[in-house]
Amino acid sequence: MKNLKKTLFITVFCTVYISSQISAQKQNANVYEFREMNQQSYRYYINIPDIEGYETLKCDFHIHTIFSDGQVWPGMRVNEAWNDGLDAIAITDHIEYHPNKSIVNSDLNTSNEMALKQGNEIGMLVIKGTEITRSKPLGHINALFVQDANKIEVANELDAIDEAVKQGAYLIWNHPGWPNDTSTLYPIHKELIAKKKLHGAEVFNSWEYYPKVLDWCNEYGLAYFANTDLHYTSANMYREKFQRPMTLVFVEERSVEGIKEALFDGRTVAYFNKHLAGSEKYIKSLIKKSLSVKVVNLKKNSIEICNTSDLLFQIQFGEYAYSIAIYPREVLRINIPSETEIAFTNCLTGQNKYVKMPLW
Amino acid sequence: MKNLKKTLFITVFCTVYISSQISAQKQNANVYEFREMNQQSYRYYINIPDIEGYETLKCDFHIHTIFSDGQVWPGMRVNEAWNDGLDAIAITDHIEYHPNKSIVNSDLNTSNEMALKQGNEIGMLVIKGTEITRSKPLGHINALFVQDANKIEVANELDAIDEAVKQGAYLIWNHPGWPNDTSTLYPIHKELIAKKKLHGAEVFNSWEYYPKVLDWCNEYGLAYFANTDLHYTSANMYREKFQRPMTLVFVEERSVEGIKEALFDGRTVAYFNKHLAGSEKYIKSLIKKSLSVKVVNLKKNSIEICNTSDLLFQIQFGEYAYSIAIYPREVLRINIPSETEIAFTNCLTGQNKYVKMPLW
Amino acid sequence: MKNLKKTLFITVFCTVYISSQISAQKQNANVYEFREMNQQSYRYYINIPDIEGYETLKCDFHIHTIFSDGQVWPGMRVNEAWNDGLDAIAITDHIEYHPNKSIVNSDLNTSNEMALKQGNEIGMLVIKGTEITRSKPLGHINALFVQDANKIEVANELDAIDEAVKQGAYLIWNHPGWPNDTSTLYPIHKELIAKKKLHGAEVFNSWEYYPKVLDWCNEYGLAYFANTDLHYTSANMYREKFQRPMTLVFVEERSVEGIKEALFDGRTVAYFNKHLAGSEKYIKSLIKKSLSVKVVNLKKNSIEICNTSDLLFQIQFGEYAYSIAIYPREVLRINIPSETEIAFTNCLTGQNKYVKMPLW
Amino acid sequence: MKNLKKTLFITVFCTVYISSQISAQKQNANVYEFREMNQQSYRYYINIPDIEGYETLKCDFHIHTIFSDGQVWPGMRVNEAWNDGLDAIAITDHIEYHPNKSIVNSDLNTSNEMALKQGNEIGMLVIKGTEITRSKPLGHINALFVQDANKIEVANELDAIDEAVKQGAYLIWNHPGWPNDTSTLYPIHKELIAKKKLHGAEVFNSWEYYPKVLDWCNEYGLAYFANTDLHYTSANMYREKFQRPMTLVFVEERSVEGIKEALFDGRTVAYFNKHLAGSEKYIKSLIKKSLSVKVVNLKKNSIEICNTSDLLFQIQFGEYAYSIAIYPREVLRINIPSETEIAFTNCLTGQNKYVKMPLW
Repeated sequence: MKNLKKTLFITVFCTVYISSQISAQKQNANVYEFREMNQQSYRYYINIPDIEGYETLKCDFHIHTIFSDGQVWPGMRVNEAWNDGLDAIAITDHIEYHPNKSIVNSDLNTSNEMALKQGNEIGMLVIKGTEITRSKPLGHINALFVQDANKIEVANELDAIDEAVKQGAYLIWNHPGWPNDTSTLYPIHKELIAKKKLHGAEVFNSWEYYPKVLDWCNEYGLAYFANTDLHYTSANMYREKFQRPMTLVFVEERSVEGIKEALFDGRTVAYFNKHLAGSEKYIKSLIKKSLSVKVVNLKKNSIEICNTSDLLFQIQFGEYAYSIAIYPREVLRINIPSETEIAFTNCLTGQNKYVKMPLW
Repeated sequence: MKNLKKTLFITVFCTVYISSQISAQKQNANVYEFREMNQQSYRYYINIPDIEGYETLKCDFHIHTIFSDGQVWPGMRVNEAWNDGLDAIAITDHIEYHPNKSIVNSDLNTSNEMALKQGNEIGMLVIKGTEITRSKPLGHINALFVQDANKIEVANELDAIDEAVKQGAYLIWNHPGWPNDTSTLYPIHKELIAKKKLHGAEVFNSWEYYPKVLDWCNEYGLAYFANTDLHYTSANMYREKFQRPMTLVFVEERSVEGIKEALFDGRTVAYFNKHLAGSEKYIKSLIKKSLSVKVVNLKKNSIEICNTSDLLFQIQFGEYAYSIAIYPREVLRINIPSETEIAFTNCLTGQNKYVKMPLW
Repeated sequence: MKNLKKTLFITVFCTVYISSQISAQKQNANVYEFREMNQQSYRYYINIPDIEGYETLKCDFHIHTIFSDGQVWPGMRVNEAWNDGLDAIAITDHIEYHPNKSIVNSDLNTSNEMALKQGNEIGMLVIKGTEITRSKPLGHINALFVQDANKIEVANELDAIDEAVKQGAYLIWNHPGWPNDTSTLYPIHKELIAKKKLHGAEVFNSWEYYPKVLDWCNEYGLAYFANTDLHYTSANMYREKFQRPMTLVFVEERSVEGIKEALFDGRTVAYFNKHLAGSEKYIKSLIKKSLSVKVVNLKKNSIEICNTSDLLFQIQFGEYAYSIAIYPREVLRINIPSETEIAFTNCLTGQNKYVKMPLW
Repeated sequence: MKNLKKTLFITVFCTVYISSQISAQKQNANVYEFREMNQQSYRYYINIPDIEGYETLKCDFHIHTIFSDGQVWPGMRVNEAWNDGLDAIAITDHIEYHPNKSIVNSDLNTSNEMALKQGNEIGMLVIKGTEITRSKPLGHINALFVQDANKIEVANELDAIDEAVKQGAYLIWNHPGWPNDTSTLYPIHKELIAKKKLHGAEVFNSWEYYPKVLDWCNEYGLAYFANTDLHYTSANMYREKFQRPMTLVFVEERSVEGIKEALFDGRTVAYFNKHLAGSEKYIKSLIKKSLSVKVVNLKKNSIEICNTSDLLFQIQFGEYAYSIAIYPREVLRINIPSETEIAFTNCLTGQNKYVKMPLW
């Protein structure tokens, strides 16, 4: 009888609980809801323009959950990214590292499946991923678009890579400068790149930027990534709203397949700490779509640059010893002669290399 | 041999991983750390004054983790509360409701032990708690300062209460207006109160305020609580920093024991959505410690009210049809004759009852 | 000789002074410029959409300078409005009230001419205006697009009105509820309206909204205005950036003539304290251009409303006892059945009358 | 009769106008006041601690009005500074430069008298000042605490200095690096310093810092000043609230005399763009009063630094290649061994010289 009661309770409770998830619509003596406190129903609309016939998706391809060494449930990662204004995430729990193993029962696909389910529920794109977690020289490699992460758990690291490739995965070389603060391109990496078994690299991870890696991406044709590598919550990691690091992906179709196609075609730009890093072509397109110039006084070369986007741009030109900010959603009035070559000092195309172009 | 290798790797990895938790101290071509992004090392200093010889602790006594139906690891709850500026939390996972049971191995003390460990690590006070989760009339009851939550898992709800009381627990009646949007004081509650088996009530939970409950607290001598009942992250729940709901507890000693003593003595004020709710005595003390008055022009009754705290106050007096804000950390210049009785309209001592006092 | 020296100095000084107005471009031991402090070169880009083939201009038609009883130089009013993100202003100094008369030499056109000059300099539209300042019943009337304000300085108030009309001016009934806190539509107003000598009314001025006036605008075909009536600085008046009150004018041509045409055609909406007030037609257009709806789950009526504008919208529908915010540049996820009639509670078409329309 | 009517009107109008300056206290159909928009009645409480038995006053000693080449009325400068959170200002209109001369009737004391009147009205300390405006080598010199600025209008610049000194004025060497971007200490300055006719120098003015000048202040015993040199409004100049540049003056008595005494005793620190510049002694006191250290884990040298002030501090120590921020009103958790010498990199005691001290 006790069990029956309990079961009955649970059933009733769940029904009531789930249906009551919608906030009280009352404001009376019984229940007074302060709607203005609610953040759960809102996400940021971060205005980063579409370019060149593509849609610009804001993505994070490196996230951990309690199913390896993260501190957050997979479904929560989806909601968190939704709140933060992202369009797509990949859950990439470690294959070889499970500190919570004695507490958490799962296989290597569990977190992906949970996240995918939540993604479908709320309309967030979720990519199945996993992290091949080895020591240097190989280091940590994210495999995205995997079919079955369980099969990638093999002893030999190169076998693991091969299995991932066999599943059609996209492979990213993670945080090359971690943990020993040295970014080194090893023979193993060159080999994998040559064999098309390594497709992209994290130019930025967590709070760290790896300038050398930007050059290697250029040299070896690797796509540029900026990911969070979240273990804690994003609010715990990053001080400013809108400043969660992200990889911008230029897709033809807003879907998992669309992202996959764009990644293999190398159509990404890394966006971190108000910097853009990637190929000149796409960054220039972002600049042109974000800024519009109005001439106020032709004789004095007095112009107004209007930034309709949420991207900050820092420009330097002429005799200026410093950069001048074109803030998101503000207009800058300035004297710049036409055809002046302007260095966008927060738009990196290589280590100490910036996008340069005239604004009018 | 494979196992040996694996073990060796794990050991080395963990050592490296843990010691590298400290961010790179470099800013060079290998690793460039953007220190300004880092939120992890910071917590808000929310200035709510100490009063009357007590220290004012900012507390949340109702939090869930993955060990019942939350989405966050216990250690993360401690870090999260630390970031948010709180002084103490209680982990109060459900006794009777474990939707993650098939995945998560634990008993009812696991989340408490984990949180306590992390609390000791970073200097946050953590209180062992649990939530007796039944349907109305009894509803949900938080038991704080429990010794062994496992023993509270019994079929009969009153036996559960008794076991908690036997362990010296402090019992709080949770969200009386949930889930059916009706706040009802049932005979069972009156009985438990009379028998000193129910000590406090949530005047506020989540985003909801229960005006009637404030009156019941007054009538029955229950302490006032405002808790989050976090299942998701606090950043996901609340829009504004500094506005995580909290119970202010006036302690003699900053410790778990100190909080216990203060709770049993009823020394709390609920703080939610820029409202204070509780006994007039303590709220008046908070007001007096937060505001200082300077007379600018005695003849014109022109004064400046300086609010050095992070508490907002709304005042109404005389002919004003509306309240006037005394914003946190701002000075208000206004004409108020001395000895004017001022209603603090965001300082509730009962349903539609406000603290009233002259400011000078 | 002394005079010569002095003249020489002044000449040299001015030359040096003016050419040095451009900030130092150095950052060295001699001069280190902190560019990030600079607000002068920036203006807000306040995104209020264009509608229905018109361009939406953000205007303030009621501003005072030191040339009547204001505290700010005319040129500064232009710069200030530019910083604040406005597109056009009118300087409307009092005709009959000049407390600074003993100190300031001018006629009634001086402030307009100065402001116009500065407007041409920086590309802000400036409209010549003046305020016929009488006591109630007539009250204060702004005359915009005047040719010669001197001629409007006549004893009889109706003669003053007539002169302004003769000059082709557009006449606005200012702050009907000031100074005696009563909004009264007097016979004189009805008369002037009938004779087409009164064209618009301030629904909002300073910090005050006059609900009755909104109804009179509807009833008598007066255009809707929200103006600041600035005497002090806008920063001294208004707490929040983006929240300087403004009259939205829907123009065919971005010019003084274009504004004049639009005003006489009644194409305005008043915008104050996150409220819109005016005709349903234009407010609905603003809503449609600001919000886009994406269906996330058709079965559950789960939608996402994306607000790309800087306008806040408050919606109420169904069983909700309160409004729900659609914040500027955020996405709201909510369950609303299709074809639901939604009340936009901050979009006023009359006293206690709101825009109502389905969102999808 | 016309004149009588007019006079009567003006009298009535003024009475009504002045008594109605107090906002409507209504919220009804006639007048609805949105109190939350009001900035006028509020000033920031900027928490910069008192030190060493002194009170710390926040001052701006270089401000222009329409009575020379500014754009704002003297009374408005007082209100503006009050809003901005300052304690004292000096109006320092140019003696020799009056571009508005044809419009504005005044002598050289007019702006001071007006400002003083407004200061007494609202309780702001106002210091009578003036700017001796010559070309380099002498440059611009502010004279504070003058009795009669008219007498300082003499042809010979040294005579002007002498007259000011005779009146007991305090003399400040303004913006040495302007307008030609070169900071040069000329013989004339050394002479005046030696004769005690030059007492302080602007280390910062407008948006410019003059590193060399900081060294000269040290070498020659000049007091340190950071002033705005406002011509436009402070909102037009500075992007961030709380970041109006100011000179911190440590007074025994909060009065004009008290400030005078403190200036002649050299008790100032310049505060600009989140930097402090001055003598080590006073800056160290500010640091000690702002920061408190709590040891969290002695073995790991894990401490929490709590910043209760509104001053930002940047610290660098050990192997860190960059500074770490201790944000205003936040707590930083960090590992620092006790007795570690810490460089406060935004606390300048000379060009490239920082305050160094252990925190615990």
